Amino acid sequence: MKGKVYLVGAGPGDPELLTLKALRLLQSAEAVLHDDLVAPEILQLIPSSAQIHNVGKRCGKKKILQGEINDLMVALAASGLRVVRLKGGDPLIFGRAGEEIETLRRHNIAFEIVPGVTSAMGAAAAAQIPLTHRRASSALVLITAHRASEKDAAEKDAWSQFVASGATLVIYMPGQNYSDIAQRLRTAGLAGETPCAVISRATTKYQRTHRTTVLDLHRSPQLAAPTLLVVGDVVRMADPAALVEGFVIPDLSKGNDGLRPPALFKTSLSQAPRLGTDKEPVA
Amino acid sequence: MKGKVYLVGAGPGDPELLTLKALRLLQSAEAVLHDDLVAPEILQLIPSSAQIHNVGKRCGKKKILQGEINDLMVALAASGLRVVRLKGGDPLIFGRAGEEIETLRRHNIAFEIVPGVTSAMGAAAAAQIPLTHRRASSALVLITAHRASEKDAAEKDAWSQFVASGATLVIYMPGQNYSDIAQRLRTAGLAGETPCAVISRATTKYQRTHRTTVLDLHRSPQLAAPTLLVVGDVVRMADPAALVEGFVIPDLSKGNDGLRPPALFKTSLSQAPRLGTDKEPVA
Repeated sequence: MKGKVYLVGAGPGDPELLTLKALRLLQSAEAVLHDDLVAPEILQLIPSSAQIHNVGKRCGKKKILQGEINDLMVALAASGLRVVRLKGGDPLIFGRAGEEIETLRRHNIAFEIVPGVTSAMGAAAAAQIPLTHRRASSALVLITAHRASEKDAAEKDAWSQFVASGATLVIYMPGQNYSDIAQRLRTAGLAGETPCAVISRATTKYQRTHRTTVLDLHRSPQLAAPTLLVVGDVVRMADPAALVEGFVIPDLSKGNDGLRPPALFKTSLSQAPRLGTDKEPVA
Repeated sequence: MKGKVYLVGAGPGDPELLTLKALRLLQSAEAVLHDDLVAPEILQLIPSSAQIHNVGKRCGKKKILQGEINDLMVALAASGLRVVRLKGGDPLIFGRAGEEIETLRRHNIAFEIVPGVTSAMGAAAAAQIPLTHRRASSALVLITAHRASEKDAAEKDAWSQFVASGATLVIYMPGQNYSDIAQRLRTAGLAGETPCAVISRATTKYQRTHRTTVLDLHRSPQLAAPTLLVVGDVVRMADPAALVEGFVIPDLSKGNDGLRPPALFKTSLSQAPRLGTDKEPVA
């Protein structure tokens, strides 16, 4: 009998921002293929009996091609396993899920898509930025800063359209070259004084937010990946702490309101290693 | 001592698409202010000791003004309660959260924002539409079809910009007048043959999807609110069942893969009433 593949969003970082369904599927998975962006605490929820494959493509080390991920996913499901394909954020945006869906259909493998909290929403929540606002913006545009060379001209036009629309822009994977991204936004017609915020490792306790303007974006400190860039007048409404200090590290730790996480979740979390590198100070 | 307000996203409909954090906060809430769009099964998770206020503004019955919601939220928190302000989808998009945040800051009330799965992601997952795709769309635009009369001209321009960009469009609250929305899309420059899908009550067992083109959108059956309209070439990649039959009702019920939902969740769910009206057939 053939197995089944679940394309599951892992949310923006905080393990508590997993959905109940994602948790249930992870806890009953027989094989998991995950991206690099998925937090270690989340991977700890996978039973030890399950195969775990890191198919992240950004390690810099061994590059895994999308075709190889597709093949592995198909092979695992064809052997009868319950496979979770775990992606950071939501699986259907900037996650190459389209190609994985086509592969699964072609091989006649049952699958289901489980949405997640996308990083834009996680970052905005953590920085307290309403992404739309009656007085400031009535639309939200999600884009990446990744350049696909053959599409550069079309992409440049699209950015100009988005800027002209007055929508809030959230740029996924803006990279470390803030001068470049600021220049691209200016070229697209964006006013230099437009407020923007770089949000690093949103919803984790290592989160940092730097609020600035497009004009001054090049002077921003280099914040640890993954980052997101929110651009638009709504950024003025960000947490005032970010305005005053330039940085804000909200205390998102579980215990600060005297409540415990749900029991089924507690054991795994308390045994989880500390997240990430030791580059940043911890609040 | 002052209480605290949690602005919490309830996700797109399926109670299993709540985040773990949302569940924890609901289960420990002392007062909940919720929108109409929040499913009854989710409201059943609130302890019976908590005050529950339906502050939905779309009932048609008594109209509650945003100012009244703000006042109630402040009064409850000021009296020392843990208040959950529960919104459908994600709280920071199309949810008037900006105004609530300003109110809470002005009254010096502690608050925290808990992101949720926004309806666009829920609908796309249920209809199996990748919202971005290397070959079809590199951006996602979230808009509403709500007309703010004084802003009509600006909004019309913005829609033209979004259409010109080639991005996938997700239109929240498209309303029941499909001719009108199709006309607005055509006026904005969209080709008549552009595929689109109306997705009704996404991620619930009453979900229905109708796939068509902008040209034929006016012939769509009237589907029950809440609906979402997804527009763009990526809709071609929707679940083929929707293409063949016009309608698809995926079986999203919990038991179909032989697994149970987490124990802490089971009791509430099994006692929950059936969702919604009896207008639609149930798969």
